[in-house]
Amino acid sequence: MNGAQAMIHTLVDAGVTTCFTNPGTSEMHFVAALDSVPEMRGVLALFEGVATGAADGYARMTGGPACTLLHLGPGLGNGLANLHNARRAASPMVNIVGDHATYHERYDAPLASDIRTVARNVSPWIGRPERTEDLCRATTDAIAAATAPPGQVATLILPADVSWSDGATPLAPVARPARATVESETVEQVVKVLRSGEPTALLLGGSAMRRDAQAAAFRIAAGTGARLFGETFVARTERGAGIPAIERIGYFAEMAEQQLAGLRHLVLVDAVSPVTFFAYPGRPSDLVPEGCQVHVLSTGRDDADGALAAVAALVGLDATVGAAPVPGRPTGALTGASLAAAIAATMPERAIVCDESNTNSGNITAATAGCAPHDWLQLTGGAIGVGLPLATGAAVACPDRPVLALEADGSAMYTIQSLWTQARESLDVTTVIMNNRSYAILNIELARTGAGAGGPKARDLLDLSRPDLDFVKLAEGMGVPAVAVRTAEDAAAAIERAIAEPGPHLIEAVLTPR
Amino acid sequence: MNGAQAMIHTLVDAGVTTCFTNPGTSEMHFVAALDSVPEMRGVLALFEGVATGAADGYARMTGGPACTLLHLGPGLGNGLANLHNARRAASPMVNIVGDHATYHERYDAPLASDIRTVARNVSPWIGRPERTEDLCRATTDAIAAATAPPGQVATLILPADVSWSDGATPLAPVARPARATVESETVEQVVKVLRSGEPTALLLGGSAMRRDAQAAAFRIAAGTGARLFGETFVARTERGAGIPAIERIGYFAEMAEQQLAGLRHLVLVDAVSPVTFFAYPGRPSDLVPEGCQVHVLSTGRDDADGALAAVAALVGLDATVGAAPVPGRPTGALTGASLAAAIAATMPERAIVCDESNTNSGNITAATAGCAPHDWLQLTGGAIGVGLPLATGAAVACPDRPVLALEADGSAMYTIQSLWTQARESLDVTTVIMNNRSYAILNIELARTGAGAGGPKARDLLDLSRPDLDFVKLAEGMGVPAVAVRTAEDAAAAIERAIAEPGPHLIEAVLTPR
Repeated sequence: MNGAQAMIHTLVDAGVTTCFTNPGTSEMHFVAALDSVPEMRGVLALFEGVATGAADGYARMTGGPACTLLHLGPGLGNGLANLHNARRAASPMVNIVGDHATYHERYDAPLASDIRTVARNVSPWIGRPERTEDLCRATTDAIAAATAPPGQVATLILPADVSWSDGATPLAPVARPARATVESETVEQVVKVLRSGEPTALLLGGSAMRRDAQAAAFRIAAGTGARLFGETFVARTERGAGIPAIERIGYFAEMAEQQLAGLRHLVLVDAVSPVTFFAYPGRPSDLVPEGCQVHVLSTGRDDADGALAAVAALVGLDATVGAAPVPGRPTGALTGASLAAAIAATMPERAIVCDESNTNSGNITAATAGCAPHDWLQLTGGAIGVGLPLATGAAVACPDRPVLALEADGSAMYTIQSLWTQARESLDVTTVIMNNRSYAILNIELARTGAGAGGPKARDLLDLSRPDLDFVKLAEGMGVPAVAVRTAEDAAAAIERAIAEPGPHLIEAVLTPR
Repeated sequence: MNGAQAMIHTLVDAGVTTCFTNPGTSEMHFVAALDSVPEMRGVLALFEGVATGAADGYARMTGGPACTLLHLGPGLGNGLANLHNARRAASPMVNIVGDHATYHERYDAPLASDIRTVARNVSPWIGRPERTEDLCRATTDAIAAATAPPGQVATLILPADVSWSDGATPLAPVARPARATVESETVEQVVKVLRSGEPTALLLGGSAMRRDAQAAAFRIAAGTGARLFGETFVARTERGAGIPAIERIGYFAEMAEQQLAGLRHLVLVDAVSPVTFFAYPGRPSDLVPEGCQVHVLSTGRDDADGALAAVAALVGLDATVGAAPVPGRPTGALTGASLAAAIAATMPERAIVCDESNTNSGNITAATAGCAPHDWLQLTGGAIGVGLPLATGAAVACPDRPVLALEADGSAMYTIQSLWTQARESLDVTTVIMNNRSYAILNIELARTGAGAGGPKARDLLDLSRPDLDFVKLAEGMGVPAVAVRTAEDAAAAIERAIAEPGPHLIEAVLTPR
């Protein structure tokens, strides 16, 4: 059995059964070996950023590990931005990067580069077996590293000769480490804080934004008067009717400062101490108000569910989750707000929403808070271009659930090739492009950074109307049926139709300028 | 004057007047400062790989340095593959990467990453000024590094506060180092080899593939019987009628081995000792035949023109360059060969050809050898997705010359967003997409690596027909007029029309399956 075949057997035996890939010559033996292991599915992407972002979406919905197969340093480079997002999402991922044969390395052929150096930024674990007989051990090591809580990207560099040579034996999976139980002293300290009577908030992130954890936090809040916040960007949030709507820390510093003002205690639950996303002239980066103590109930390595349940058992109180209203079907001009209402009015049950709607995200999250329970996947690392790939991977992971990609026009264009993979795999993804013909967030940021409104050259660099992008043609060019809508009622009807029909669809929502 | 303004003044004073960019919040002061320096042109790309590939094309045609502005680590990551190609092309480039403010770094905000680590792979020079008053010195240092022969990528990491703070003063340009004159002993040694009577070849690359160098090499060959070869992939080759057609080393090892068989001396002129592109089971990587001595006439740091002229003065002989025939206008089925004839028959004068036609490149280079003199830009680093960006940058550099992008379907999809920038800037680029609905090179490589023909899963991963890509719609979606052609006569007519009309055009050549 050659290295590639044994490696794929090892992956499959450990439950890694999908590989998102854009392969090249150095990966041809891996590609050929797919036919000898029926359980492994290869999903082709036209660009590596699609493969890595899809793997992230797959990992967020399955718990992982997801798997990629990339082509040397440049392929890894193309996938790097979405690996950065995956790192920030703590997504378990085995990132296989094909390399030149070991004996070819010293010739510095055109495609040679230092793959480790590129991988280091996103991947705490990096392995490069030099012999075929070591490949399967490296594979189980990579899986173990990827799945160690909270989850991470593990990069396995696979030299071509290690892949093509005989002499490998598949290895059985190793047990995956569980999240650690939070010490009872930590629970007691947090309970003490909560009973102090001083203004206290819990800040939830990561695993604490799943349904049970949020319910426990809600009981704690009901029992203690503590406030609840969620991190601004979370890999996967369960939300909707019956789930407490947790207030998110605002993206802009002045919003966040207002939200956190007056707090004396901030308890982190799988969250990091809040800082501004960017620095702005004359503003502090640290968002924790003066005089506020930060406590940690659980880190990403710990069992947040158990910790919150333990706290709730001591100070919690059952309480009724308020029902957020769902907006009715909108009519009239298509604005950010009316589009949000159209999305809320048509949101299917058990939807997976991949939200890269940027400046319109506030409208949409508010409008959908009372919709049937759904999952909400966000941009965790700020590297835009994750939405369409995330949706692609989530749909591969959950073929029985409708996936909604809510996507800004500028962000969509980084990884627009995702649509082709959606068509190829007949994925049930409805993409709504919010076309305001600009990098709207940057127009805001230009002013906020103190650079003012900008002159004509500056404004032109944030403008996407010269020429207008026609997303209907772009989608059709990659085999995805598409329609443009210009009114709120057309938007609602189009979303409904797209969800009802199997396979991918794209709706270009041409927003009325404010 | 703030840092950004002074930096742009410093760049402009040194002749750096075009910046290819996809900026974000941390670059907003740089963007705002563009309005205070009219001489600096900002060219917006929807994806960073377009910006870096365009900068490479610009550098190859102007001599550089080109300039980019990217957004933190993920923006650099997105641009990395084409920076790898630029590194292999020895393109002088100042690669500016915006970063968080210096005081924001320690908070590890979502977009934070180790930019140096990512840049190290493509950029021998990396600078990160920590104070505004040091920014302009870092800028002149970066320009000096970028332009030191043979040319390289110099990465300047620009913290946001260094950019936005006051206290910078523009610096005057420093003299650019010239290429070194090759020592007369080296010239004499090469002359001795050439006079030895033993089978000898010159291998030309980089700067030796320009017109004067090739002419000198041709005279040397005429005077000594030495054979002439060009490297397989060259950043910029001058070729066409009146310029000797230099035989290229074949991409596949068995071709190259045949070409070089029997040589006793191989003289490198701004070239590297030939190795195979990839390793293949059971084949050597080193292409130099046994018993063949390798000599170096000049490296990339040296003046190849002068060295070749010196050798030619001693052993050269004037000789007539043979006239390669230009094929007539083809008719009938559109195959790789008839498309090549259509391109040759319609090639305009002074064209700049960006060749990423991969499996069809051999047909096209053969057919066009006798066309009016033109420049030929190739994929130097093997990271596919360079062709459309190269063409974009070359057209910005040379607005008075027609640019032809000859592009394979698979490669086109990595950086298809280039078309939008071409439309935005009204660039005179004619893109010919060779649509054979597959990663054709990988079907060949699958067999060549010993993986056989592959099973259905393997073959499916190399297939681009599920669904078919419609490049006409993709182009129109980004504002570029487009047409699909299915016969050789239609192809020739469409290319002619596209060249005659100003602005970008795309022609989808739907190739008949062989």
